[in-house]
Amino acid sequence: MTYPKSINNLISNLKNLPGVGEKTAERMALAMIDFDKEKLGSFSDSITDVKDKIRHCLICNNLSEEDECIICKDKTRDSGILCIVDDVRSLMLFEKNNLFNGKYHILKGLISPSNGIDPEDIDIEALINRVEKEKIKELIIAVKPSLEGEATALYIAKRLEPKNITVSKIAHGVPMGADMEYLDAITLRTALFERKKIS
Amino acid sequence: MTYPKSINNLISNLKNLPGVGEKTAERMALAMIDFDKEKLGSFSDSITDVKDKIRHCLICNNLSEEDECIICKDKTRDSGILCIVDDVRSLMLFEKNNLFNGKYHILKGLISPSNGIDPEDIDIEALINRVEKEKIKELIIAVKPSLEGEATALYIAKRLEPKNITVSKIAHGVPMGADMEYLDAITLRTALFERKKIS
Repeated sequence: MTYPKSINNLISNLKNLPGVGEKTAERMALAMIDFDKEKLGSFSDSITDVKDKIRHCLICNNLSEEDECIICKDKTRDSGILCIVDDVRSLMLFEKNNLFNGKYHILKGLISPSNGIDPEDIDIEALINRVEKEKIKELIIAVKPSLEGEATALYIAKRLEPKNITVSKIAHGVPMGADMEYLDAITLRTALFERKKIS
Repeated sequence: MTYPKSINNLISNLKNLPGVGEKTAERMALAMIDFDKEKLGSFSDSITDVKDKIRHCLICNNLSEEDECIICKDKTRDSGILCIVDDVRSLMLFEKNNLFNGKYHILKGLISPSNGIDPEDIDIEALINRVEKEKIKELIIAVKPSLEGEATALYIAKRLEPKNITVSKIAHGVPMGADMEYLDAITLRTALFERKKIS
């Protein structure tokens, strides 16, 4: 005997979630059976809602229920400065910690010649056009610290060189509070190379 | 800024799943946004299906889409022997490993005087009535190995004493392949106490 068909279906769907294997999916499905009907209805509705309502902001690629996201519509934000990230989670990290009051641009990936991902594939053109159209004065690149991230940052800086725009990237180095002995060599080398004079 | 409302709703619902906290729920929700519409539809439908279809078998309490579950309806199974478990997962464990070809009865919990759970609360009466009605000859108790499990097993055995029925419980002891040094004292004491003569 296996579970009734509807439970097996639920288990397969739960297994599509990141980090959820057979056993966890089974445990989740059985827990859900004990939810009351209202809770299950709300769960199912929230998935349908996300399916029907969520799209990408036409300006910055952020997740939104409208053509323009809340951040792009916000008139109180500094519209002369853009923070460039490569996924929504990075954006949320800045937002949750109230670290930045400009606007964002989410790239559709990072340039990676070895994986055949060129600037066109991640639509850098849209960013360049936006910078011109919105008369952006400063760009802060905050993409993942990796070879691909570096390549993407360099490419964007190069493209914007002719225009009088400040392009910077967030600092890499030893994270605050880190246990030095567990640091990887690349981080340590970066920290050493980018050392700052104590004045 | 936080996520759009529909994503926040989905995150709250995911947080109701066992073992899922804020960060995991967020990661799951963002992964779900990348699912195609069909996959999201199927996920939402599977929850509605479970909500609308799943109930407890009127005979054994197993999960079922009909009044009687597949096991209770199965004429090829030995209907003279009952395995008593305390949740669906235990039943599935026996089934997945093809360990038992009789029928099951799922208790609605375990007797626990200290928590105010009496035999009536877990409907032992239904089991006793079933044993009589179905002329069961043997009962194997396979509930959780705990004080509550022991109390429940003893109570059932006591209730069935007057009727000529074999009541046994699955053996407790050192699990096969276990690393002896990590065994807890209670398991070891049980194993010692229930030692068997090598003949």
